[in-house]
This record gives sequence, C-alpha cells and structure tokens, in this order.
Amino acid sequence: MTERRADGDGRIESATHYLPLRVHYEDTDLSGAVYHANYLKFMERGRSDYVRLLAIDQTALAAGPDGLFFVVRHCAIDFLKPARLDELLEVRTQFTGTSGARLYCVQSIWRGAENLARADLTLACTGKDGRPKRLPEILRQAVAGRQADAR
Amino acid sequence: MTERRADGDGRIESATHYLPLRVHYEDTDLSGAVYHANYLKFMERGRSDYVRLLAIDQTALAAGPDGLFFVVRHCAIDFLKPARLDELLEVRTQFTGTSGARLYCVQSIWRGAENLARADLTLACTGKDGRPKRLPEILRQAVAGRQADAR
Amino acid sequence: MTERRADGDGRIESATHYLPLRVHYEDTDLSGAVYHANYLKFMERGRSDYVRLLAIDQTALAAGPDGLFFVVRHCAIDFLKPARLDELLEVRTQFTGTSGARLYCVQSIWRGAENLARADLTLACTGKDGRPKRLPEILRQAVAGRQADAR
Amino acid sequence: MTERRADGDGRIESATHYLPLRVHYEDTDLSGAVYHANYLKFMERGRSDYVRLLAIDQTALAAGPDGLFFVVRHCAIDFLKPARLDELLEVRTQFTGTSGARLYCVQSIWRGAENLARADLTLACTGKDGRPKRLPEILRQAVAGRQADAR
Repeated sequence: MTERRADGDGRIESATHYLPLRVHYEDTDLSGAVYHANYLKFMERGRSDYVRLLAIDQTALAAGPDGLFFVVRHCAIDFLKPARLDELLEVRTQFTGTSGARLYCVQSIWRGAENLARADLTLACTGKDGRPKRLPEILRQAVAGRQADAR
Repeated sequence: MTERRADGDGRIESATHYLPLRVHYEDTDLSGAVYHANYLKFMERGRSDYVRLLAIDQTALAAGPDGLFFVVRHCAIDFLKPARLDELLEVRTQFTGTSGARLYCVQSIWRGAENLARADLTLACTGKDGRPKRLPEILRQAVAGRQADAR
Repeated sequence: MTERRADGDGRIESATHYLPLRVHYEDTDLSGAVYHANYLKFMERGRSDYVRLLAIDQTALAAGPDGLFFVVRHCAIDFLKPARLDELLEVRTQFTGTSGARLYCVQSIWRGAENLARADLTLACTGKDGRPKRLPEILRQAVAGRQADAR
Repeated sequence: MTERRADGDGRIESATHYLPLRVHYEDTDLSGAVYHANYLKFMERGRSDYVRLLAIDQTALAAGPDGLFFVVRHCAIDFLKPARLDELLEVRTQFTGTSGARLYCVQSIWRGAENLARADLTLACTGKDGRPKRLPEILRQAVAGRQADAR
C-alpha cells in the first residue's frame, strides 16, 4: 500500500515543486563532492515526487495495459558548485510545457541561496517497447493548470 | 552551512532511529523491485542520519586532523521481500554496542508492518590510511547512553 | 543483438569464474575508497557474466512466460581492505550448490594477491510476482557439472 | 600496484577512445532499460580509461600537492535509444580541445551500428577546494597531439 503523500515528498507552490534532500555517503566520490551523475538522480526524485503530488501514479501507469514510462530524451545541465556530505539541498522542478508525447522541464538544485546546478530536460512518454505514447491527459491538464496558476 | 536537523532525517525513539524514505526509479532494476545493493544504501542513510541527530558531525570528523571515516567491516543481510517504486519505506537502526574501533549495529527495512530486510553490521572507525582509530568518545557515550535509556 | 561472449566478461577455470574490473570514479566515496555497497554490484557483475558464459540467457528468462529473475536472499560479506580509484580488481565466483529454487554462491574480490572482500550468498529464482520458481534445469546441470569438474 | 593497461580499458585509434562495456542488472531500472543517469557513468568510465591509456594518473593527481580533480561543468546529452540487460555497448570518446582549466569532450554510446546516446561535455580541472587549476601539461599536449594525429 503506497502512501500518496509523505513529509519527505516536498511541496508544490504555484508551478514549482520543492524537494528537500540530504547528501549521503553514497552520493559522494573521492573528490569529496557529489558525483556529477547523481545530480540527475536528485532531479529525477524531484520530478517523481512532483508527479506523485499531482496524484499521478507512475506505478499504475507502468503496470497498466500500455505500460507507460517517462524517459529522459534530452538533458542540458550546468554543474555550478559542488555539494558535499551531510548538506541539505533543495531540488526545484517546473514543468514548462507538453506536446504530444513530450514533457518539458526546468530543474535546479540549491543549497540555501546558492544555485548548485540547473538543467533543461525533455522527457517522453513511451510504452514498454520504447515507442512514444501520448502523455496521460491527467498530466497534460495538471501541467496546463499549474502553468495557468503561475501566471 | 549544513543544517543539523531536517524533517527528512527521521527521529530517534529510545534507542532506535526511524528514517522514512521513498523508493525512486534509480533504486529499481528490471525485475521491477529495488536492486539488492540499494538496501545497503538505504541502511547507510539511516546510520548517517542517526549519527547526525546525535550531534556527531561526520563531515568534520572526515576533514579533521585524523581524517576519521566509518567503514563497514561486516554485513549479514537477509532480503525478505521486494520493495517497489513509489513505496514509502522505513529504515530502523539500533547501535547495539562499541568496542575499540568498532561499532555494532542492527538495521531493518519496513513497509508498514512488513519486514523487507534485516541486517547485522560491524562498522569500524578508520583514518584516511585505512588503519583503525578509536571511536570518537562522543559516539561511544551516545551509544552507551542510548542503550541505557532503552532498558 | 547481444553478443554472448566478450573479452570483458572474464573466464571460467574449473569451477571458478574470474572477472577483471577497473575501479572508476562512480565507485568511490569521499573516503577515497570504493563505497561498500558497490562491492555487491561488482559481485553481481561476476555472477551475471559467469551465467552468461554458461550460455544461460538472463534476458530471455526475464522476458519469458515465467518471467524468471535471480534475487539475492541472503548475503554475508566481509570487507577486508579498501579498493581505490583506477585499481584493477578481480571478482571470483563459485556456485557451490543448488536446491529447489536456491543457488548457493561464494564470491571474493582480489587486488593481485590481496583479498579485499569475501561473501557467501544465497540466491533464489523467482517469478515477476516474487514467488519462488525452480531453477532452470540448464543452470542446475551447469552448476552440478562444474562442481564435478572441479573435483 | 595499479596496472596501467588492461584488456578491459578499451583502445585508442587516432583521436578516439573506444571502450566496450556490458550492461548489468545494476544499470537497469524497472522500465527494463538502462537508467538514464547511468549513461553518464558509462561516459565517465570512457574518459577515465582514455586518460589512463594516455599515461595520465588521476590517482596521483588527486593525491598530489595540488589535489587535482576533473569535474564536469556542463553536459548536453541526447538519449536516442534504450540499452538493455546483457547488451554489449561501446563508449566512444574524443577530447576536442582545451583552454586554461577546461577540457572539451564529445562522447557517444553505441550498440553495434546503433547510436544510443551522444553528449557534449565541458570538464574543468580543479583543486580540492573547487577552484580551477590549469590542466596538467601532459594532458594538454596529449590532447593537442591526438588532434593533430587525427587530421
């Protein structure tokens, strides 16, 4: 039984989702900072928790007849400053638009007022076979509604 | 500036630390369940957050003149049931004793009332060179005190 | 098209599989050594490459009508010495027996003549639903035959 | 003792490094394909193995008085097709230029003749404190020489 909301899942304000997260040993590499690819994991946590708070059930979509998954098609990311062990970070996520099977997204990672990373992502909705599928209507509407709210 | 406490860091009750965590895409493998090695990561998050709540600063210990790190020396783990995407889990951590450079630990992972994994771990405190170092006194006392509280 | 053999997949001698692997940045943590949970990943690479060299196709098993997966049920691991960036390691794998849905396994990690870790594992064959399934006959026979060869 | 060359470290032809690698369980997620952030890990393995074959010792640079590390500053990556368990992939790496503390890089991932991902990266050489350091001369010359060879 999955609880749909939990304190750790962050919060939505207007069209932005805010996810706090803690840097753990597993996230670091021998430079002492967070390994760069793990920023993408942090961002994916932000997107998933945002989607869950929008009442979209990725598990049900994946298990359903169409076997829907969200996959990253493109990511342009700037790594601005290193994050380190034990630091409390915040992932900010905005869905900036949709078109057909695509979902556009801007994300950033912050430590207090310092911007550590920012990224533009293009996601696609696909079936288990990898072919594009139209985004679930509930997600299209949620994104459209949130964007309208934010104006 | 690291915040020493945050909602996501769990709570201590008597001699047990409870850490809630959400299963994300990164944690799963193609079987649909959490990849087994990631249970060890979840447990390490539990230990680190417990230690932080005890006001022990792993970052300062690592950066200090002795360069102290906690490393896992032994782990015996039973994987009882699979965890899946989006599930809200709880990591429970008890430090069961110390001796010299060693810290003994029992941990388990739960989904509601279901026990998904349990492990016995032996940790060692080492310098950057890998040699054993006596556990910081603050940790020895914290563990001893917590155990007394739990009786 | 998956190539069934490649130079990087290691070799079998008698009843032992030997897999060379290189430590990369992603494997390390801020202590400068390999993060402990990643030893379990290294061992899983060894088991999978061994199974592939035995001509058992995990992908076909997973995609088949029964949806067979190998999951770790129990692991007792000793972390003896740290591994570091750029080091060339070797994972040694022996399947020591089978019974019903279970496969027993002894694994170790070496850097030249130094033993860095050793583990006993119990694996289970399960369906997508997590229920135990009898090990594929080809694997039972392969394990039995390899053990006979090794005597 | 780190062996400077191994069969698994790939090969350099003209100005391109080719690294074969196998997809393992740890790399996949519940969609059945490789988790997107792991493509960045694969690419980092390619860069590191390339640098090692150029006789540049990242471990010695990191441990030296300047504590040099290579960090990713920018990455633009296209995920073109999914990779799956057991597939044999190839990471291709070209260093396309240097300037001051920066190293420019083009990388791609292939499964046979199929291009699964391509990326442009900007790397920076930094000290332990995160400040930019001039690239080691040996690397500047290696990149310049390789580029001249490729013409």
